[in-house]
Amino acid sequence: MFSRKTKNEKRTTVSNKPLAVVLASGGLDSCVAAAVARRSFELALFHANYGQRTVARELAAFRAQAAFFQAARILEADLDYLGAMGGSSLTDAGREVPTGEEEPPGIPSTYVPFRNTNLLAAAVAWAEVLGAEAVFIGANVLDNPGYPDCRPEYFEAFGRLIELGTRPESRIRLHTPLINLDKAGIVRLGLELGAPLELTWSCYVNDARACGRCSSCRLRRKGFAGAGVPDPISYEV
Amino acid sequence: MFSRKTKNEKRTTVSNKPLAVVLASGGLDSCVAAAVARRSFELALFHANYGQRTVARELAAFRAQAAFFQAARILEADLDYLGAMGGSSLTDAGREVPTGEEEPPGIPSTYVPFRNTNLLAAAVAWAEVLGAEAVFIGANVLDNPGYPDCRPEYFEAFGRLIELGTRPESRIRLHTPLINLDKAGIVRLGLELGAPLELTWSCYVNDARACGRCSSCRLRRKGFAGAGVPDPISYEV
Repeated sequence: MFSRKTKNEKRTTVSNKPLAVVLASGGLDSCVAAAVARRSFELALFHANYGQRTVARELAAFRAQAAFFQAARILEADLDYLGAMGGSSLTDAGREVPTGEEEPPGIPSTYVPFRNTNLLAAAVAWAEVLGAEAVFIGANVLDNPGYPDCRPEYFEAFGRLIELGTRPESRIRLHTPLINLDKAGIVRLGLELGAPLELTWSCYVNDARACGRCSSCRLRRKGFAGAGVPDPISYEV
Repeated sequence: MFSRKTKNEKRTTVSNKPLAVVLASGGLDSCVAAAVARRSFELALFHANYGQRTVARELAAFRAQAAFFQAARILEADLDYLGAMGGSSLTDAGREVPTGEEEPPGIPSTYVPFRNTNLLAAAVAWAEVLGAEAVFIGANVLDNPGYPDCRPEYFEAFGRLIELGTRPESRIRLHTPLINLDKAGIVRLGLELGAPLELTWSCYVNDARACGRCSSCRLRRKGFAGAGVPDPISYEV
């Protein structure tokens, strides 16, 4: 759809930092993960469209952050087969994204089956082509207890898969720098590292002004409140 | 591009067999894997376009096989970000697919970085949405010693990832029924199970008449010769 083909040319940056692929959704967590990554790496930012409701708004947030970070490489990929499969309120227009506190415990309806594996598979493929040494993902477990593919043991297993499934000379390590932080901790770390939190988008529902009611908006606001700083974006309610 | 959206409706078949997702490329190996799967499962056939050279011919072969197998579900997904990343002679028009015996040992130039992880990630996501109990892949290691993501230990690690990365109630097992067969053994098994080998396409180069010279054509012909049966398709040379 909107895939931008990237030529496989050699990098021309003069930096001698190695390259890291960062999964960058346009949201808060991946923005902070990118800020962590750039301390040691040149950035190759990977963004995926998978049919999520607020796809255009997330893409705009991604592009603004890519410009801010002066990413050495960007790739916008179309994984909309994930949305076509259905099974999630995040991608299925026929299902409501829950607002309010009523969502039952267990797996949230916004869970997209095996999503992180699909995203990481694409990111690692790109890392292998680029000769990158790292893949970063901003996943965190404390605020996402219901998502099976946000747990540390899941990422450990993925790291093993990278070792086995790539060329012997590939040296790609999976980094999950936010895995044990809560949202307030992520906000604090982002501020400390100068991450452009004002350019991030979290709302699952709207693409003009954040709804303030969906689970993602609630979690974000709780994070800023917990960190004791104002959220730079504005909300409907 | 040519994704066919599948509605997430309940299955209406009267069979009481559980459902298996089979990665079906249009080639020989996956056709035989599907023939193995249908002994115990209803088939949900998954086909991916990832920018490979003979994409249209492979799709035609896939559709012919899906009709033959009376698949309960089919999904044609677009993973062309894999091709856009480059890094393989299979997807990169600027690189030559080797013909003849000259390819050096090691990783073949037709290796698509982390391809099987991307394909399996999509197949498992679909299996989870459908409530399928199995994912089949026709990978085999003997004739593909250079591909890191065709080794048994790679698939074991992927099985672990499925356990950790899907809902607790998901019961998806990864099946690699051809993993220890050579091409002659795969041809024999296919004939034994009534697989429609005449509907399969293996050539990496042509889409009208198989070239007979690329590594995939050579391997296929060696397989039929080893099994002592004629190959039902015809070749340029």
